[in-house]
Amino acid sequence: MKYATFSADGDTFFGVITDSGAIALNEAFPDYASLYEVIAAGAFDQLSGAAEGKPVTHKGFKYEMVMPDARRILCVGVNFPDRNAEYKDGSEQPKHMSLFPRFASGFTGHDCPLIRPPENHTLDYEGEVAVVIGKGGRRISQQGAYDHIAALTLCNEGTIRDWVRHAKFNVTQGKNWDNSGAMGPWLVPFTDTAQLDDARIQTHVNGELRQNDTLNRMMFPIRREIEYISTFMTLQPGDIIVTGTPTGAGARFDPPKYLVPGDVVEVSVEGIGTLRNTVEDEQP
Amino acid sequence: MKYATFSADGDTFFGVITDSGAIALNEAFPDYASLYEVIAAGAFDQLSGAAEGKPVTHKGFKYEMVMPDARRILCVGVNFPDRNAEYKDGSEQPKHMSLFPRFASGFTGHDCPLIRPPENHTLDYEGEVAVVIGKGGRRISQQGAYDHIAALTLCNEGTIRDWVRHAKFNVTQGKNWDNSGAMGPWLVPFTDTAQLDDARIQTHVNGELRQNDTLNRMMFPIRREIEYISTFMTLQPGDIIVTGTPTGAGARFDPPKYLVPGDVVEVSVEGIGTLRNTVEDEQP
Repeated sequence: MKYATFSADGDTFFGVITDSGAIALNEAFPDYASLYEVIAAGAFDQLSGAAEGKPVTHKGFKYEMVMPDARRILCVGVNFPDRNAEYKDGSEQPKHMSLFPRFASGFTGHDCPLIRPPENHTLDYEGEVAVVIGKGGRRISQQGAYDHIAALTLCNEGTIRDWVRHAKFNVTQGKNWDNSGAMGPWLVPFTDTAQLDDARIQTHVNGELRQNDTLNRMMFPIRREIEYISTFMTLQPGDIIVTGTPTGAGARFDPPKYLVPGDVVEVSVEGIGTLRNTVEDEQP
Repeated sequence: MKYATFSADGDTFFGVITDSGAIALNEAFPDYASLYEVIAAGAFDQLSGAAEGKPVTHKGFKYEMVMPDARRILCVGVNFPDRNAEYKDGSEQPKHMSLFPRFASGFTGHDCPLIRPPENHTLDYEGEVAVVIGKGGRRISQQGAYDHIAALTLCNEGTIRDWVRHAKFNVTQGKNWDNSGAMGPWLVPFTDTAQLDDARIQTHVNGELRQNDTLNRMMFPIRREIEYISTFMTLQPGDIIVTGTPTGAGARFDPPKYLVPGDVVEVSVEGIGTLRNTVEDEQP
């Protein structure tokens, strides 16, 4: 099952994506305005039953950011061994993971353009797997961490690279440009540890393979991410953790290969899907 | 007028604080579940009229974080000249401000305890003014910036100091411990530029003056904060900017003066009020 947020005829819906179109589930869940609210209320498991046997409601539609009203999105930085080496600062493998929040406004949907702003053209891609928390908790152990994941999706954690280094202690302003990244196309229920443990993630730009790695090479595995984050904050259903990107972002090439209008970026993980985005300059 | 979120008899309300008690306004605004939702919908101006002539509904109540469902809280770091010097890294005054998001879950309300976790005891205070955006916008000029502020409140931007330096690029994990900071007691409408431009902020710990400065000494004034942040993200009504803390946090003393259970921290700005918090160890 694939759960998405989509728009059609001027309205926004949440529901299920099938081979022949989308099935809106808003009427079946009148108490919830969004996928986020369904998950936050612990009702994610009810979606599949509600969709069963329902006819397609929309043949033509546009994907939106998969959870446009997500309240808390935490991204893990520098989480593959070669990524740390990329910084060339002679530092050893870090003891703790790097974490930064991103607001939902920084992400657009599948098949939508990433927006390059006029202020700066160092727009870069980062392909990642994102996990959606289904069961909250504090001080969750690594052993039990996967029990807290409801669903998986893909993220292009698009970045305005120059602005990441504006300030001395934080990357905030390079990571939160409106529609500079993307999340989607859909949520896939997390039912089998192999969906993460054996997963390979690839990012292509205009068909050229730029990122290609397996999640089992993370310095801080997803189980550890959940354990660490839940040490300081109570995880809540609907929270999203963007788990880290492999080596091969555009900034790491010499000269850098930043995204330009017309580029097509595809982030793929078998079993989840492909998140595809074009690139456009912001309209004045 | 003072607008607050408070709890009584097991329920949570929003409304007005008067000398004789609180006036809940939930019934007058049935479409909105919270102060945040009122402001996000652009209805903040309607609150004062709705409260007029209404009787006190609650004589006894407990303050909650003033906007417990705030979606986006951005904090400005290192924003007073002596604060930059405190880092003793020889760096000049920075060209750009440091920014980091905090989740609402990191803040408790007025008169509630800041929680010191068992993992680390370097709990520290930072007194700050927070501005609540009332009118959204992108690429807002400094000249027009104040027009976008609906209300002011106070923040104790409480921090687990050791965890701020866990990761190399971000302070996230030191700034987001559950109930490690506080925001409130209430929102005060922003009607006069002097409320910010001539304001003095003071933080007392157990009656001892620790922070004492004026907002006009900020390296990045609040007008500039709004201009800079709105360059990369569209500000929305209900967004909160925590504007920066003066020198004098506990970490800057030698030896450091971290908060311990029983301490009382008060952040005060004339015309806004005093945000008072005790300190407690987390209950096992």
